[in-house]
Amino acid sequence: MSAEDTLTTDREAAVTAEVLDSFAATPDPRLRQVMTSLVRHLHAFAREVRLTDAEWTAAIEFLTRAGHITDSRRQEFILLSDVLGLSMLTVAINEPDAPGATESTVFGPFFVDDAPEIALGGDIAQGAAGVACHVSGEVRSVTGEPIPGARIEVWEADDDGFYDVQYPDGRTAGRGRLRSGTDGEYRFWSVLPSPYPIPHDGPVGDLLAATGRGPMRPAHLHFLVSAPGFRTLITHIFLAEDPYLTSDAVFGVKDDLVVEVSWHHDTPAPDGSHPDGDWTSIAFDLVLAPSDEH
Amino acid sequence: MSAEDTLTTDREAAVTAEVLDSFAATPDPRLRQVMTSLVRHLHAFAREVRLTDAEWTAAIEFLTRAGHITDSRRQEFILLSDVLGLSMLTVAINEPDAPGATESTVFGPFFVDDAPEIALGGDIAQGAAGVACHVSGEVRSVTGEPIPGARIEVWEADDDGFYDVQYPDGRTAGRGRLRSGTDGEYRFWSVLPSPYPIPHDGPVGDLLAATGRGPMRPAHLHFLVSAPGFRTLITHIFLAEDPYLTSDAVFGVKDDLVVEVSWHHDTPAPDGSHPDGDWTSIAFDLVLAPSDEH
Repeated sequence: MSAEDTLTTDREAAVTAEVLDSFAATPDPRLRQVMTSLVRHLHAFAREVRLTDAEWTAAIEFLTRAGHITDSRRQEFILLSDVLGLSMLTVAINEPDAPGATESTVFGPFFVDDAPEIALGGDIAQGAAGVACHVSGEVRSVTGEPIPGARIEVWEADDDGFYDVQYPDGRTAGRGRLRSGTDGEYRFWSVLPSPYPIPHDGPVGDLLAATGRGPMRPAHLHFLVSAPGFRTLITHIFLAEDPYLTSDAVFGVKDDLVVEVSWHHDTPAPDGSHPDGDWTSIAFDLVLAPSDEH
Repeated sequence: MSAEDTLTTDREAAVTAEVLDSFAATPDPRLRQVMTSLVRHLHAFAREVRLTDAEWTAAIEFLTRAGHITDSRRQEFILLSDVLGLSMLTVAINEPDAPGATESTVFGPFFVDDAPEIALGGDIAQGAAGVACHVSGEVRSVTGEPIPGARIEVWEADDDGFYDVQYPDGRTAGRGRLRSGTDGEYRFWSVLPSPYPIPHDGPVGDLLAATGRGPMRPAHLHFLVSAPGFRTLITHIFLAEDPYLTSDAVFGVKDDLVVEVSWHHDTPAPDGSHPDGDWTSIAFDLVLAPSDEH
């Protein structure tokens, strides 16, 4: 290392030390810990790659574009976290230590807080295009007790690969809220989900294109399941034989979340109805870990 | 480490490995290097602090707010980079290896591309409030040759601590573009800059408040100086005895950039004018490093 290199390195180390010092008076020790760790790793990254002025400017422009494309129906920062694997890493870090519990995966950007209430056995499709799909199972604890009255939120893309909020017409379709029955059972009609690209007409899509990565996600149905005394479960189910299971743009697939789809034709459905033409069914139990609050 | 801890760690390591693999086909080797380094350091941060779901959500909300407050007159992402010291670290990483050159500091968010042209010796204040200040010096190379015709952009906050673009009335004041004269000399009138808080009514201000940090910057005048064959210089001059020199919210102060202010009363100015009441002067030479392009 030459004298000049040492000078450069000393100057860089001095900047990092000064910034770390500036957080010394943070009243909340957790915030102090998070900010000092963030600064150390952010600075280590910039030093390691010898970040150029042009790259710094490109990063500012990237974040600005992400901010400006984000609105109540589009969340580019969640997409960014998803494609950088930060979302799935956070899921892994916070996975409960509860063997047998259904595994978690990414939340995604398409949840809506006030989805329509449906009765047990009702239809969440609400006009979403696709092959009818009956989804059913049991909500239970890791020790096998059924959990009645659990709140189940489900949402999915339609046959064209779009969530309702991605359409400009304000429709609500492919989402609903229901409660498990007295024996923990749940069931609802929906449509069979399809693989789809994450929104890729923004900066995150440009990043994927520039890095030779695809925007596709394997078909999936989202679940958010909560019940008093249990840890809230955020997960998906994926469909076996989906061509994108091994190249999910957001790294969300776990083996235990991949389910078989049963196809039916001209047979009555479990609720006694006779769907026109082909219909499908999926069985998936939702096993909740105990709450962290004791 | 228990069996459960190992399982958690393996799961986290698997996520990081999968994300790093996803960048393997990036055509541009520099982009691949930057993205894989970014992912490794971002993931190391999240693992080190055991990032919670609530903290992840807070980060998404922070970035969303930063994006929504950013417009053509407000740049919250540059402020964020500034208060995390990433801007000054990038300056340090890219500082030219040219002993004797004027040192660089942060660009800041208040530069405007089409500032008014002024003649050598003209006034950039254009109505900005403050004590008149005559700024002059020489633009030269590190080997002492004068640089005639150098493009000099200057901008500053007024006596109330605001840049023109922070006023809602669309004014242009406290900024201008001029060229050095035939002997490399430059001079212009301005107002004495004042210390001011960086905009702190947004998420970056909330971060500073939560971490016990102040938003103040010592008074300064911005320079952006360019000439063919020389590296573009982005810097400030700071005023000696400013109370905020040791606590700049964006870590921009360097000793060599601190200048003495001379106060004058009832004496003619260098250009023969007789300013009313007190006026001030600053002498500062701008020494440019040779261009990186050979």
